[in-house]
Amino acid sequence: MAFSQPKESPSNNPGLQAFPDDATKGYFMQQTMFRIKDPKVSLDFYSRVLGMSLLKRLDFPEMKLSLFLLGYEDPASAPTDPVDRTVWTISKKAIIELIHNWGSESDPVFKGYHNGNSEPYGFGHIGITVNDTYKACERFEQLGVEFVKKPDDGSAKGIAFIKDPDGYWIEIFDFKTIRIVAADAS
Amino acid sequence: MAFSQPKESPSNNPGLQAFPDDATKGYFMQQTMFRIKDPKVSLDFYSRVLGMSLLKRLDFPEMKLSLFLLGYEDPASAPTDPVDRTVWTISKKAIIELIHNWGSESDPVFKGYHNGNSEPYGFGHIGITVNDTYKACERFEQLGVEFVKKPDDGSAKGIAFIKDPDGYWIEIFDFKTIRIVAADAS
Repeated sequence: MAFSQPKESPSNNPGLQAFPDDATKGYFMQQTMFRIKDPKVSLDFYSRVLGMSLLKRLDFPEMKLSLFLLGYEDPASAPTDPVDRTVWTISKKAIIELIHNWGSESDPVFKGYHNGNSEPYGFGHIGITVNDTYKACERFEQLGVEFVKKPDDGSAKGIAFIKDPDGYWIEIFDFKTIRIVAADAS
Repeated sequence: MAFSQPKESPSNNPGLQAFPDDATKGYFMQQTMFRIKDPKVSLDFYSRVLGMSLLKRLDFPEMKLSLFLLGYEDPASAPTDPVDRTVWTISKKAIIELIHNWGSESDPVFKGYHNGNSEPYGFGHIGITVNDTYKACERFEQLGVEFVKKPDDGSAKGIAFIKDPDGYWIEIFDFKTIRIVAADAS
């Protein structure tokens, strides 16, 4: 396709507004929430395998649930006061919020969560940028991580998809491989 | 609950690693992907209502799909070269990736996507931090946005949930209201 304007211009994208409304100034994309069966398993996966830290935990005993807010911020720089720490966490971009409904980890009839990549479709994945997809995936293999797509599977060479303990998909890519894979689509 | 260590310490959270593996250095949470029925409607919503910009569009004719990467970066600072612009986009944290399977917008038997907040449960929401939840929600009401929870509904006063055009939930909160709502849970 050839465009006289960048492909991303409003003239090429019906519905798209050219400039954000001033009323939205300061908005930022803070979190992505999904439900998990067992925090012990998910905390291990997201901290040990993916290098995230637990920035904040919120417990709601009356609702029998806990929220685990994880991300790539350094928890050593978090405030000591627990409420200040909540606000500090919410001030960071790009965190994941894992909701644990108490008891699911030991409930024999709990049948697990749906990852959105089969009927009924919806949510697809989160994506982590890494320094080197191939190196990262070698390590994931050594750690026994389950793959949806290894970097050299299929046509999109250099992009991988792994599964978290609940089966949610996580895309793994780096600047170099994205440049090659997405060149024709750009 | 009383803790001698911060509640978020590994000693209070089985499975959690104290320090990220060096191999994960440089990792960051880049994107959250979900499927949309009609880009015209979703681009309008995310740009006009929520103030995001279209950072990059990728088209895959052989798979009959397009990816729309949106976020709060300024597209005026994007490189001119389309491939450089893809890499620039992927270098930003906290973007959303909307996948459009061509034709869904006009397919009479397409039954829509599943937002994960009813059976089968899974994904829950994305969350946007705003300056003032009440003001933001007044504006959303004027714009005809559908609410799952208005800020004063239920017990969590000052937190709202709206729906995007496909029915996905978006949490709306600010530093002030989170401080109050999450105080007991912190």
